[in-house]
Amino acid sequence: MKIQVVTDVLAANDRIADENRALFAANKIYVINLMSSPGAGKTSLVEKTILTLRDRFRIGVIEGDIQSTYDAERVAALDTPVVQINTGGGCHLDANMIREALPNLALDAIDLLIVENVGNLVCPAEFQIGEDAKVMILSTPEGADKPLKYPLIFRESQVMILNKIDLLPHVDFDREKARRAALALNPDLEIFEVSCRTGEGLAAWYDWLAGRVAAVRG
Amino acid sequence: MKIQVVTDVLAANDRIADENRALFAANKIYVINLMSSPGAGKTSLVEKTILTLRDRFRIGVIEGDIQSTYDAERVAALDTPVVQINTGGGCHLDANMIREALPNLALDAIDLLIVENVGNLVCPAEFQIGEDAKVMILSTPEGADKPLKYPLIFRESQVMILNKIDLLPHVDFDREKARRAALALNPDLEIFEVSCRTGEGLAAWYDWLAGRVAAVRG
Repeated sequence: MKIQVVTDVLAANDRIADENRALFAANKIYVINLMSSPGAGKTSLVEKTILTLRDRFRIGVIEGDIQSTYDAERVAALDTPVVQINTGGGCHLDANMIREALPNLALDAIDLLIVENVGNLVCPAEFQIGEDAKVMILSTPEGADKPLKYPLIFRESQVMILNKIDLLPHVDFDREKARRAALALNPDLEIFEVSCRTGEGLAAWYDWLAGRVAAVRG
Repeated sequence: MKIQVVTDVLAANDRIADENRALFAANKIYVINLMSSPGAGKTSLVEKTILTLRDRFRIGVIEGDIQSTYDAERVAALDTPVVQINTGGGCHLDANMIREALPNLALDAIDLLIVENVGNLVCPAEFQIGEDAKVMILSTPEGADKPLKYPLIFRESQVMILNKIDLLPHVDFDREKARRAALALNPDLEIFEVSCRTGEGLAAWYDWLAGRVAAVRG
């Protein structure tokens, strides 16, 4: 008997991601894959984005967590369709988890799908899920050396949101060093400096995202 | 031909961890495995601990990073023996990486070995490396919901260092909620509330660690 060995797990994942992407395109859904370290502000950004853009677009959310439904409850409280994926220990979302979650969402009633990944600056960046854009958050307390130490996620992302700029007076964070290091890895990276707590800087992020969603809706 | 399948990667890792542990015991070395999210303050804690305890103990360090040698350079600047492990994309250290690194350290000239893991609140907690204690850092900007969302690392650790308490006036962090959630997962968890930036609270950590190292030295 011949033993079949799947030698390239990432290639297998990418095939499913392509199927997801085709399904999203058929339904004219713009999809972002939101990634960051634990506690950088992903769910806060999701909440703010829903509250601001829901008058213009129909928004759906997939929440990825190791266990628990805390983040999904925060989204559901905003009357937004949400599906929770529990990875059961797994450190990232993959394309098949998204595929399995999709029957729980009414795809013909969604313009923008926000996928909040597991809090982890390493593994999620390796896995396509069928997204249009990877959006990462770096928060100022994490330090300006993060692009140098976790380069893949900065290379893979189209957008970097620098969150918690309200803490700049209280932390040792070299804003220019962080920008330079991130752009050296990825010259096309769009950077938005924001505070989800105060709202500062978020307007530019909303504009960027609304432009992308509108382009897909046609 | 019979195909051998390693079904339990963690059991295979634990066997090597046991060998490491025996080697450390033979050399009377106390070993901590330091884990946290990116940017929570691992390297800062390593630096402070070296500066405070190096008059009493001979300290060695293993730095785990995906790539780069920035953290090892910070430790080397303190005239402390340090080995850098680059995981090349890997999201955690495992027992074999430690075994491979050990020939680069003079084990008969070390009392305390600090292993700084890759910045990741998920995967490192699954892998024994032969340590005496897992020490985790939670930083206040990450939020008080982290024990509920990343429970394994809180269960596996003997010590939780709550870092960046100097930021408490500026972040939405419920200290009692975080303590309660962490202790609910692990009633024996030792908790030290500190600021590596101001030095507040660190004396209790130094005392705890010095007591452990002294006990092993006999």
